[in-house]
Parts: sequence; structure tokens; C-alpha cells
Amino acid sequence: MRALDDIRVLDLTHVFNGPYAAQVLGLLGAEVIKIEPRPYGERARSIFPIPDAEKQSYPFVMLNSNKKGITLNLKSERGKELFKQFVTQADIVIENFTAGTMDKLGLGYQDLKRINSRIIYASSSGYGKTGPYSAYPAFDSIVQALSGIMSTTGDPAGPPMKAGPPIMDIMAGIHFAAGILAALHQRDRTGEGLEVETSLFESAIGPLTAQIAAYRAQGDSYERAGNRAPNRAFSPYNCYPASDGYVLLLTSDNQRWQALCTLMECEDIAQAEKFATNRARSQHADEVDEIVNAWTKQHPKHEIMRLCGEADITCGAVQTVEEVLNDPHLRERGILKDIDHPTAGSVTVLGAPWRFNGQQPPNDTPSPNLGEHNELVYSKLLGLSEAEISELKEDGVI
Amino acid sequence: MRALDDIRVLDLTHVFNGPYAAQVLGLLGAEVIKIEPRPYGERARSIFPIPDAEKQSYPFVMLNSNKKGITLNLKSERGKELFKQFVTQADIVIENFTAGTMDKLGLGYQDLKRINSRIIYASSSGYGKTGPYSAYPAFDSIVQALSGIMSTTGDPAGPPMKAGPPIMDIMAGIHFAAGILAALHQRDRTGEGLEVETSLFESAIGPLTAQIAAYRAQGDSYERAGNRAPNRAFSPYNCYPASDGYVLLLTSDNQRWQALCTLMECEDIAQAEKFATNRARSQHADEVDEIVNAWTKQHPKHEIMRLCGEADITCGAVQTVEEVLNDPHLRERGILKDIDHPTAGSVTVLGAPWRFNGQQPPNDTPSPNLGEHNELVYSKLLGLSEAEISELKEDGVI
Repeated sequence: MRALDDIRVLDLTHVFNGPYAAQVLGLLGAEVIKIEPRPYGERARSIFPIPDAEKQSYPFVMLNSNKKGITLNLKSERGKELFKQFVTQADIVIENFTAGTMDKLGLGYQDLKRINSRIIYASSSGYGKTGPYSAYPAFDSIVQALSGIMSTTGDPAGPPMKAGPPIMDIMAGIHFAAGILAALHQRDRTGEGLEVETSLFESAIGPLTAQIAAYRAQGDSYERAGNRAPNRAFSPYNCYPASDGYVLLLTSDNQRWQALCTLMECEDIAQAEKFATNRARSQHADEVDEIVNAWTKQHPKHEIMRLCGEADITCGAVQTVEEVLNDPHLRERGILKDIDHPTAGSVTVLGAPWRFNGQQPPNDTPSPNLGEHNELVYSKLLGLSEAEISELKEDGVI
Repeated sequence: MRALDDIRVLDLTHVFNGPYAAQVLGLLGAEVIKIEPRPYGERARSIFPIPDAEKQSYPFVMLNSNKKGITLNLKSERGKELFKQFVTQADIVIENFTAGTMDKLGLGYQDLKRINSRIIYASSSGYGKTGPYSAYPAFDSIVQALSGIMSTTGDPAGPPMKAGPPIMDIMAGIHFAAGILAALHQRDRTGEGLEVETSLFESAIGPLTAQIAAYRAQGDSYERAGNRAPNRAFSPYNCYPASDGYVLLLTSDNQRWQALCTLMECEDIAQAEKFATNRARSQHADEVDEIVNAWTKQHPKHEIMRLCGEADITCGAVQTVEEVLNDPHLRERGILKDIDHPTAGSVTVLGAPWRFNGQQPPNDTPSPNLGEHNELVYSKLLGLSEAEISELKEDGVI
């Protein structure tokens, strides 16, 4: 049994934000039917395409596993009609088009709830439907700029810096999924569907809690702190060179500082008054960093991490993307796994970051080819014959 | 009506990750009872304390609004007994202690489900219960190091860089909430509670999808790209100086590049062959950046953003924390709002990033003082008399 195995999702999403939300619903057990336009499918199919695998790309295979794939032209009258038939048999419609797109097609929530009063209609946009930025185009990095992530990231002497990965697409994607799941509980109780909206920008502010707190406490003196603690309250806290890369290492209390001194074989430093408290160490942070540097640079990063971890000291190797892909913990926990794709070969997919009663839900169905499940879905769900399906293809409807 | 207004949560969480998850459940309508130890309460109460407001801190007020607050000593026998009585009247127990803590107290899922078979028991740890890192201590920035966020953030010529804000605490916090909501749907159907586990590290990999894809496509040549596009596929794409700070500006297609040229009054550049396509512009990215710099540095950042936004060009002002706090969009949308706190004065809280049927759920109850709702909760839920409550206080149980 999986949490959502009674739920059917019509997935109209594209690129990162929406597909991640729909994939989460699939990992949790829902039947997710991804609906794409011909002839190209959704945009992510053409970002970093996989050689020799038609319309499969490296990001697409990661964000669209565990989904069925069908094609449908929502701009045609017959296409709209077919979509409405699907809506009568679905629980959730999820989309991240520009706000208002589905309304213009006559397929917005007001249209769909007349067909199925139990439907949950979920949309994600850049900024939401109202407010001064609502009509502006959005993008992960733009939201990083606006939300303060950039101004609080990077070296104090350098420019603001964005986080490399599209953290806001995913942050908003999982907020999107959470909003849908809450709506589902309401519908379970009332029998009435509802509309759920969220946006990239509005999902971006949670992480700023720490910076807003620091700003409230310290006022204008607040600035970005590179790899040091935002408030400089801890020392050591930095990215230290190892013999083969870097580690991020910090001690959040005196006991762990003492444990680190033992590990570094620096008994004299452990005794020194000027390093005795967090406050004292923070005042001598450059000296502390030199001491830690002198030790870390002699050892490989994963060895430092192991030694620290076993001594209950907070430390992580700064892993390259290749190392993340091969990380033994992520592999053992099934968070990254390789599955066979019929055209793309062996592909890496994301496993569910949850265990329910100790079991991780499976993720073993590769991303669909464009229209791969047309026959299955149109015949099973809508009862169309082979001849009817062929006709729809010829007419460019599916 | 709010989505979870039939749900009661026992919140044992601390600092950022767990409190964010519990707060999300509260914003969605659940009654969240935060249970804290005497005499200090949870750790976040002492991070950036608010002057003259006893045991209230700037992060605490943001992550614990919309919660009731009670005290309970879970290490005492009478305390465990009282906790079990609460469990009979609750739907969800949520905690982010070190793995195994609740089991050792005799209050793990196996103990609690005997008391209430409908209970959902939710825990979040650093790495999960098994796997090579499971015993290591975790921290937001450590997970940024391990998950590849650091190695893909920062200037290519400089060291790896962590994102300033604790993005992984919040990313894992909202994954935590989503897992609980999925479990709730399963319980709604079966009547049987379940155990949900998640972890910081396992929730951190979604954003790496883009980097893993780039690595798969480009192999060893992949490196961090500062504020440029990770794959250098777009140009312009950078953090450009404005007259009063910076903007992040990008054009993802030729049409928007043309629109930008019009805005910059650079008709000759719009015609130039060597800037005609994304690929061509990427090959001349330094020149493109100079052209954009020359324009942006003449204008204030919010003005550039407005001009671009109105021309459908993706651009955001790099906002300081102070500017985020006063952002007109976030204020209008209720994502940041100021409420009165009885001891801390006016405090800023996070609004829900969802609208259900067009309505944002309210967030208007300030964070509780330590034990503020003891009388209310112990009398209403457990039927204790004033005298009994006083005795529990004297005995150090609550």
C-alpha cells in the first residue's frame, strides 16, 4: 500500500517546479498522467537531450519517472473535450503555466469544477495572481535575487552570489505538493474539491528566517559572511582546504571544540583561554581558522569527515556532482538510483526522501516517451477504440 | 474552513527544520501544541533573543506563530504518562530529535501506537536511521557541502560557497510536512496510523537535478559558474551592477534579447550577427555582459526590474534583507506581515504561501511564551484541576 494509491493526477506541468511537485505525488503512490503537446512535448525534453534517445533529456528522466505519458492538444476543441472527460475521472489537475493560461482555454477551475465538483485544481506561478510583480516573468535565479538569498550568499568582499542549483524551483515544487496534499485532506472530509495556488516567490521566504532574525538583532551591520556562520556566532565554522578538496566544518559548542582539539592533537590550544568559549573563538576566528586549516590540509576530505563524525563533530566533505552521484549513503538509502530506460539506457533517478512504516516507496518506472501511454490511457480511461485513437492522431488532437 | 482544522498536532520540534514543518501544519489549520522542556524551552528561544521579551527570539517568533505552548518534562514518569494521555487525543506527533531519542524515552512509535492506533508519528533526522552517515551529526551547511550545493555555488576562480540562508533546514522541513500530509490521507482511508521518517540529507538532492543533468551531458568539464547560467547556455545571464546595487538579469530566448536591446536603445547590437542566437551570445558572453553592464549601471535596480518586467524580460533586483522585509509584493500578498506580540512587541511573521479558493489562511496568533497555554491545555484536554496543575508545576513535571 502507498499513501496516495487511490489518487489520479492530470499533470500539465513543465520544466522543474511543476514536474517535481507531480513527481512527489507519484512517488507517494498516485497515478500521474503527464499530458504533453505534440510535436515536442514539454520544454524539459529539449534541455540537455540524451544522445540517441528521442525526446528524452537528463533532467526530464529525473523529474518524470513514475508517470504515464500521453499527448493532447488542449487548443483544439476535440482536445478540450477529451481533457474534460479525463477530469471526470481524476482527483487532481496540476499545472504551472503562466497565470491565466488555463482560464483562456476554458479549462480553468471554474470550468472544471462544473464537470467534477471533487476536482482539486492546483497551479503554481512566478509571483501569484495579484500584487505588483504578478505580471513579471519569473525564473529560479530571479527569485533568488528578490528573496534575499543572493545578497546573503557569497564572499563579503565580492558581489552577491546565487546558489548554483535551482533551489527555488524545487522549494516551491515541494510547497506546491504540500498545498495539494492539504487540499486533499479537506476534500476527503467535505467531498468538495478546491483550488490551490502557490508561487515561486512566495515559497522562497522560509529560508530567510535566519537572516531576517540576524538583521533584526544586528541591524545594518548584517552582511553576507561567505562560508562563515551568518552571525559569526560560531568558530570554527568555515570551508577548510583538505588534501583533495574542501570540508565544511563547525563546532557549535565548547565540548565539540574540545573534541576537535583532541582530534587535531592540539592539547595546548584546547587549554588556551582565548579559545575557551564560542564568543572568544569568534573574536579570534582568523587564528582558529589557521589552526583548523593546518590540520585539515593534511588529510583527505572524506577521511576528515569520518574522523569528525565518529567524534560527534559536525563536518561534511564538499562533494562534487560526481561524488554526490556516487555517494554511498544516498545510494544505500535509495535516494539516487539507476534504472533502465528503454531508449535512454541506464538513467539516474531520485528516490523518495520518506520512509513510511520503515519502507521507502519505490521509484522504478522510467520517464515515458512522448505519447507512450496513449493507447493504454485513451482506451482504458475514455473507452476509445483503436480506430478512434488512430483518427485522433491523424487529426493532430493527440 | 481550513484544510486541517480537524487535526491536532503534538509538536516536540526544535530550531528550524522541525518547527517549520509544524508551523506549516498550523498555517494549514491544524491545532499545534508545542511541548517544551523547562526551564529554557527549545533551543531557538535563545538564538538572537529579543531584548526585554522573556525567552522570545527573532527566529522563534517567526517559526512558532499559530501554536499553543505548554511545558512538559518527558524524562519524568509522570511527564511520560501525561504525554501518553495527549497522544490519545492527537492525530500527529512530530519531532526532530537525534534518531532514537523518543524510543529511549519509551515514547517511540511502537510505544505510542499501542495507545492510539490512529496516531501518525513523524520524525526528521540528519541522515535517516540507517546508512554510513546515520550516526554523524548534521547541520544545514554540512548538508549543503555533502549534497553538492556548495561545489556548484560560487565563483569558478574561488572556493566552493554555501548559500547563506539555511535552505536545507527549510527544504527538509517542507518535505517533512508533505510526508505527514500524505500519511494523513492514508490514515483517512484506512483508519490506521503510521510512522513517517525523513531527513535533511535525503531532502537535499532535488535541486541537484539540474547539475546532475549538466554533469551527465558535459562530463568532467562541468564546474560552478558564479552568477552565470550553470551550463552557460544563456547569455545575457549574470548579476549586473545597477546604480544602487545589483540586478540578476537573463534572456532565455532571442525574442527577449531583442526586447532588451530595444530597452537599452542598442539597435545596432540587436542587428549584430554575433549576438543573433543564444549560442552565439554565449560564445561572446563577456562582450554581452559589458553591453548589459553599460546600461544597468546607469539605473536603480528596482527601476531596471520594472522596465524589464513590463517588457517581459526576466529580471530581479538583488534585494538586501531589509528590502525583502519591506518588499511591496510580499507585503501585499501577506507573505511577510507584522503582528503584535504581547511581550516582544511588533514582530514579523511568515504568511502561508498558499491560497485555497483564493483565500490565504491567516497567520495572526503570535508565538507562545514558555508554558503560556498550560492551564488551557491541561484543563481542557486532560481535564486536570487548577490544584493538579499547580502540583505538576511544583513537582517540575510541567
